[in-house]
Amino acid sequence: MKLKKVTTLAALMMAVMALSACGRNSKSNYSTTGTSAGNYQGVIKKGHYRTSKARGVNVSQNNNQYNLKSFESGLTTVSKRVFSTKNYIFQEGQYLDTDTVTNWLGRKTKKNPEGLNPAQGKKSNPNPEYIQQLEEQDYMTESGSKLKLKGMTIGIGINSEYNYKKKDDGPSYTKKISNAEVERQGKIAAEKVLKRLRARKDLQNIPIVIALYKQAPDDSLVGGTFFAYSNNKGDSISSWHTLHYRNEVLPKAGGTTSENQDDSSNSSSFSNFKSQVQSFFPNLSGVTAQAQYNGSSMTGMHITITTQFYSQSEITSFTQYITRAARRYLPSGIPIDIKIQSDSNVQAVVFRNSGSDKFQSHVFDSY
Amino acid sequence: MKLKKVTTLAALMMAVMALSACGRNSKSNYSTTGTSAGNYQGVIKKGHYRTSKARGVNVSQNNNQYNLKSFESGLTTVSKRVFSTKNYIFQEGQYLDTDTVTNWLGRKTKKNPEGLNPAQGKKSNPNPEYIQQLEEQDYMTESGSKLKLKGMTIGIGINSEYNYKKKDDGPSYTKKISNAEVERQGKIAAEKVLKRLRARKDLQNIPIVIALYKQAPDDSLVGGTFFAYSNNKGDSISSWHTLHYRNEVLPKAGGTTSENQDDSSNSSSFSNFKSQVQSFFPNLSGVTAQAQYNGSSMTGMHITITTQFYSQSEITSFTQYITRAARRYLPSGIPIDIKIQSDSNVQAVVFRNSGSDKFQSHVFDSY
Repeated sequence: MKLKKVTTLAALMMAVMALSACGRNSKSNYSTTGTSAGNYQGVIKKGHYRTSKARGVNVSQNNNQYNLKSFESGLTTVSKRVFSTKNYIFQEGQYLDTDTVTNWLGRKTKKNPEGLNPAQGKKSNPNPEYIQQLEEQDYMTESGSKLKLKGMTIGIGINSEYNYKKKDDGPSYTKKISNAEVERQGKIAAEKVLKRLRARKDLQNIPIVIALYKQAPDDSLVGGTFFAYSNNKGDSISSWHTLHYRNEVLPKAGGTTSENQDDSSNSSSFSNFKSQVQSFFPNLSGVTAQAQYNGSSMTGMHITITTQFYSQSEITSFTQYITRAARRYLPSGIPIDIKIQSDSNVQAVVFRNSGSDKFQSHVFDSY
Repeated sequence: MKLKKVTTLAALMMAVMALSACGRNSKSNYSTTGTSAGNYQGVIKKGHYRTSKARGVNVSQNNNQYNLKSFESGLTTVSKRVFSTKNYIFQEGQYLDTDTVTNWLGRKTKKNPEGLNPAQGKKSNPNPEYIQQLEEQDYMTESGSKLKLKGMTIGIGINSEYNYKKKDDGPSYTKKISNAEVERQGKIAAEKVLKRLRARKDLQNIPIVIALYKQAPDDSLVGGTFFAYSNNKGDSISSWHTLHYRNEVLPKAGGTTSENQDDSSNSSSFSNFKSQVQSFFPNLSGVTAQAQYNGSSMTGMHITITTQFYSQSEITSFTQYITRAARRYLPSGIPIDIKIQSDSNVQAVVFRNSGSDKFQSHVFDSY
């Protein structure tokens, strides 16, 4: 009997040791996606990219795909203010899973006490769903051969309008949500989210950044922007930093005058570029852009040129010309990309990445 | 009376002078699209790109768009063998207009004596249309402030199969055309085209390059290739140079073994790349490529990766990884591009242009 107990204990101990060895092995068995200027390296575990535990939730949450892309890359931009790309490795969120995020984004009901949105109320005059999307990003550092979680960023997207129907097959109604209300609702949600994260043993001692994003309306041709973030050590929000991002679609509808001078010089550099390009090529269909500003300075541009090409040599010549025009007319020192497409197929691209001072170009060809 | 005559003469002379000044002005009023490594500069006249006089004819002539792109860029590649990109400026064809090219590509009939294709014959067993597309490229040099035509390249695309119907609403039949016949028909057409061009006063003293292209079948996933060219001073073809280009779609269907060792080392470098990339990302849909060979050496690759992304950070991480994998696994020293797309939208591109030894990458983002 005694011998058996010892044997059992020994077997148990060996199993525990084997498991923990396993854990160690798996922890050291990581690599990264490699560096590129100004970007985080991403975590690869055992040859596979580590995807988010809540993968795909935000895709289903956004009717406007611009809100999806700008939320995600905007969140990374906010993270870079706190976690340097040189010292931290990026990992897709591993702590909030699909069920958790889906429940949090729902309305608060008996069945779903964790819902961050208020109960519906009257169907003819419902309470808005304020909180539209939520994303976790993990920031790791290497310690020995292991990766350790050293920081987390949570993005919360808050609606600026709420669309609803009084009857399922009736017309759509829209409630505008004021900036003050967007901010208030975002801050309420942030407090709750931070407390819930701190309740987890493994998230008690890391800085948790929470960033608030105002969603653009569903019919907007540009996504929303982050307007505040906080960097928290404890279990309640320490203080909020205001962000001054603003997005714009160019050319402006109806020649609206700009709020300030930097703006108008930027949009006139775009109009110069646009008119040069349009005169160069017969039947040019469209030159449009998304521009982002931080305060009064432009921080980047995405330009799309749509036209009909009749030969590969036209595409090549056009791309050469665009590269020269971009250098001459577009603002310097900021990342810009120009997608040259026909029938919604990309034919060529001209771009200046963040941190670079040279435009690169590439023409898509075929054998 | 005498005075009146003199006045009329003076007025006439002034008009002539004004016109010729106009001519001079318009001739000197040109610029170019700008240089990019290894490419021709294109002609801009009075701020507008000079499009081809037969613009769009080839677009309507090709059921397989791969034949269109590969014909046009292949023709430029052949031109570079004769007209150096340093000394010559490219101009879209200005001597053959839409009507001319359309007539030449037609069948020879009473109404269209210039048709390069034979009369139809029996509808139940028609003569093939051999000549499918034709393109003119002009090569200019600067002389004083004027651009002068100093060379011309003509590409002729010959069908490798001919599709026809015995009845308008009946099934489709296909006649294969042998390589020997493709070559024979191409050379017959080349002689005729050269004589017709030399009959024009303004084309008597320039070198005219004629290049022959074998069209790929309509269902091919890669276009055809140029197989011969001649550089002519007189009004009949001097001699033909054989070209050894060959296109390939990767991965090869059913693991066909390669004709030679260079091939198999190239396609195994692609399979290594492909399997690395596919293991990295869950649910990766497809990695395919077009490769071109000159003799036994690979001269370039166009790779397309299609997958479903769930966030912008996945796209960024994937692109970093692809850049690293491309450097490690793909053949060095040749131009390569990798289009990363989801739902047929380009999300990112990784490329190494001709003459460069570094991969560049760009992720398409949105505000």
